[in-house]
Amino acid sequence: MIEPRILKGFRDFHPEQAIARQYVISKIRNTFESFGFDPIETPAIEYLETFQGNIGEDEKLFYKFEDYGGREVALRYDQTVPTCRFVAQYQGTLTMPWKRYQIQNVWRADKPQKGRYREFTQCDLDIFGLETAAADAEAIATCLAFYDSMGFKDYTVKISDRALYAGIDYPVIAAIDKLDKIGVQGVVEEIVSKGYAKKEAERIINKIFNLKPNDTIKQIFSYLHAMGFPKETYVFDNTMARSFSYSTGPIWEVNIAKYTVGSVLGGERYDKLVGRFSKKDIPGTGYGLGFDRTVEAAVQFGLVPAVKTVAQVLMTIFEPSMLADSLALAQELRKTGLNVDTYTDPEAKLKKQLGYGDKKGIPLAIILGPEEKKAGITVIKNLRTGTQESIPATKAAERLKQLLAG
Amino acid sequence: MIEPRILKGFRDFHPEQAIARQYVISKIRNTFESFGFDPIETPAIEYLETFQGNIGEDEKLFYKFEDYGGREVALRYDQTVPTCRFVAQYQGTLTMPWKRYQIQNVWRADKPQKGRYREFTQCDLDIFGLETAAADAEAIATCLAFYDSMGFKDYTVKISDRALYAGIDYPVIAAIDKLDKIGVQGVVEEIVSKGYAKKEAERIINKIFNLKPNDTIKQIFSYLHAMGFPKETYVFDNTMARSFSYSTGPIWEVNIAKYTVGSVLGGERYDKLVGRFSKKDIPGTGYGLGFDRTVEAAVQFGLVPAVKTVAQVLMTIFEPSMLADSLALAQELRKTGLNVDTYTDPEAKLKKQLGYGDKKGIPLAIILGPEEKKAGITVIKNLRTGTQESIPATKAAERLKQLLAG
Repeated sequence: MIEPRILKGFRDFHPEQAIARQYVISKIRNTFESFGFDPIETPAIEYLETFQGNIGEDEKLFYKFEDYGGREVALRYDQTVPTCRFVAQYQGTLTMPWKRYQIQNVWRADKPQKGRYREFTQCDLDIFGLETAAADAEAIATCLAFYDSMGFKDYTVKISDRALYAGIDYPVIAAIDKLDKIGVQGVVEEIVSKGYAKKEAERIINKIFNLKPNDTIKQIFSYLHAMGFPKETYVFDNTMARSFSYSTGPIWEVNIAKYTVGSVLGGERYDKLVGRFSKKDIPGTGYGLGFDRTVEAAVQFGLVPAVKTVAQVLMTIFEPSMLADSLALAQELRKTGLNVDTYTDPEAKLKKQLGYGDKKGIPLAIILGPEEKKAGITVIKNLRTGTQESIPATKAAERLKQLLAG
Repeated sequence: MIEPRILKGFRDFHPEQAIARQYVISKIRNTFESFGFDPIETPAIEYLETFQGNIGEDEKLFYKFEDYGGREVALRYDQTVPTCRFVAQYQGTLTMPWKRYQIQNVWRADKPQKGRYREFTQCDLDIFGLETAAADAEAIATCLAFYDSMGFKDYTVKISDRALYAGIDYPVIAAIDKLDKIGVQGVVEEIVSKGYAKKEAERIINKIFNLKPNDTIKQIFSYLHAMGFPKETYVFDNTMARSFSYSTGPIWEVNIAKYTVGSVLGGERYDKLVGRFSKKDIPGTGYGLGFDRTVEAAVQFGLVPAVKTVAQVLMTIFEPSMLADSLALAQELRKTGLNVDTYTDPEAKLKKQLGYGDKKGIPLAIILGPEEKKAGITVIKNLRTGTQESIPATKAAERLKQLLAG
């Protein structure tokens, strides 16, 4: 016997969780598409060189191996890099500005901890081909529209601009990005550990604390205002730096006040990344939405439907002689849009079937015995309360929908 | 510069393709959920031993490697085996009979050819905990319901039963399964190559040609009939064997008459597979829907919407002074459910914006100049025909929806 187990940092999703995830994905797709962004998909496995040299200090987290053809390959580490590869590869055929979204899993051999897994879902949205603040603003607008559509409260997009940190080396920026986690002293120590004098480290941090929004950030704010997003949902944050080495302009993160694991979304402008794969630089701006954290937060605040099953109605088989009639009625109800489960053992006692429906979390059951058939009726039983009612068979679908809506 | 390219056997999906795939996935989800099946997800990477010893001769196709912790791991090869691992692992908490579906990618280091890729999407549906023909019939019913809901014509589910081949060794069954591809002589030769005398090989094949439906198959047929599926959509096929070593009962495949790449779905009962991970055997029945082939067939027969973009309306920026009004109108329209794109460069000329919308495939554009604003109207332009009309701003959403529906 093989022990049934999964690898650390990986997860099985049970129906209740998978239903919640699917619900959030639908909301994300709806928002992204409402702004005219189109879906694409890229492979889970790519040439290792595609990912190398883009990410900064995190390349040790690649899942990489040699394939049967002796090629060095890696699992998708993020979606920004493959998309830049995509833009470079097909640039002649893409309509610019090119707006796409991508919802796929990525893999990182990171140390597992709360809210951090080795396999997780990313939802990326990006605009290629424009260097305008309007493009940055639109990308940010889709973040705000999504968190609003989910019903989140007290979420904020913190916005800054890499241009403000001009003249500061990347390792120092990476240290500053940890301010929330390690505090001012921690950042100073980390900068010192990179070979800077303590005084210099403090000078840099002081400079950053005194940064003010530049024109680009002001323009982004004015667009967000025009689109009607509440003022308290977007702020300038002079201490936010984003740890990616490829950021070249505006940067942003979304935080939800009472979700303490960390930011749920991070984005930036990156005007030099496509150029790694192409003679021609094509500017890009966009973000990766931390899907797993967003679902975790949504569950925490009760923003996803708490159902154990998609099934809405259990069609019981009253006795084997009623099998054909019951299967036929189940099919009829499905055609009206209802999710109808049947207990697929015609020999099972009615009580056992109803017990199954109740345990699975199905709200309603239908009973169709020979008497009911003769009278042209069916019985609807509420599996939560135990109450039941008779209804003409022809009205069953309508009544079930009423009960489900109530 | 890194050459932008992908690995052989892997695919990028452009918006047009990704939209078609998404459409088919929605149809599959709707069908599966209409029968009360719940979604689950399992990891892309599992312990190698989870997959070993289940699949038969194809284990050489595993994508396997050693992870950073020195563990032998493999990418998901199919979804049946991980689900059996799942059922064994959580059996105490699952409501039996347990009905689940799973839509995820799998990886096989197979020789790429038309309709066969190294990464592809599988849509699995299974019922655990029942040995009844009713369970097999319900699984098969979901196949028929799905291909019907897509609008396919001339599809057939071919049904047989491994019990009919009792006494025939697995390597011979695997050879018989290739009958469609290599013909009778090919099958005879393959059986002979497994160490059988030619006469014995011919005797086995003759026996198979004379098989008749058993009681289980007849029962399945009666259930499908009761559910109202047309008789011509399900047939007994005495030469179909399925190549998986774990099949233990009814087996089935779906073929679409004019799609010649191969079967688009394969399923079977497998009552001994959960037992590999558990002291207790739990019977299972279900199938993997070949998603990529199904999409290919759907595109071939024009059964997916042929759109280049999800965007329905281009909100133009008539001139920079109209930016705020235009962005506000775009947001309003989005809130009515329309997918509204904007050209996120307020300096771009109107002609350029309209050219973008047309090239991207957006059907309609809205123009809002200072004159229109004063008069309380907007102009709707059909980007395909070039015709345009003025409409009160308050009626814009309604009129756009009319035009899109027409």
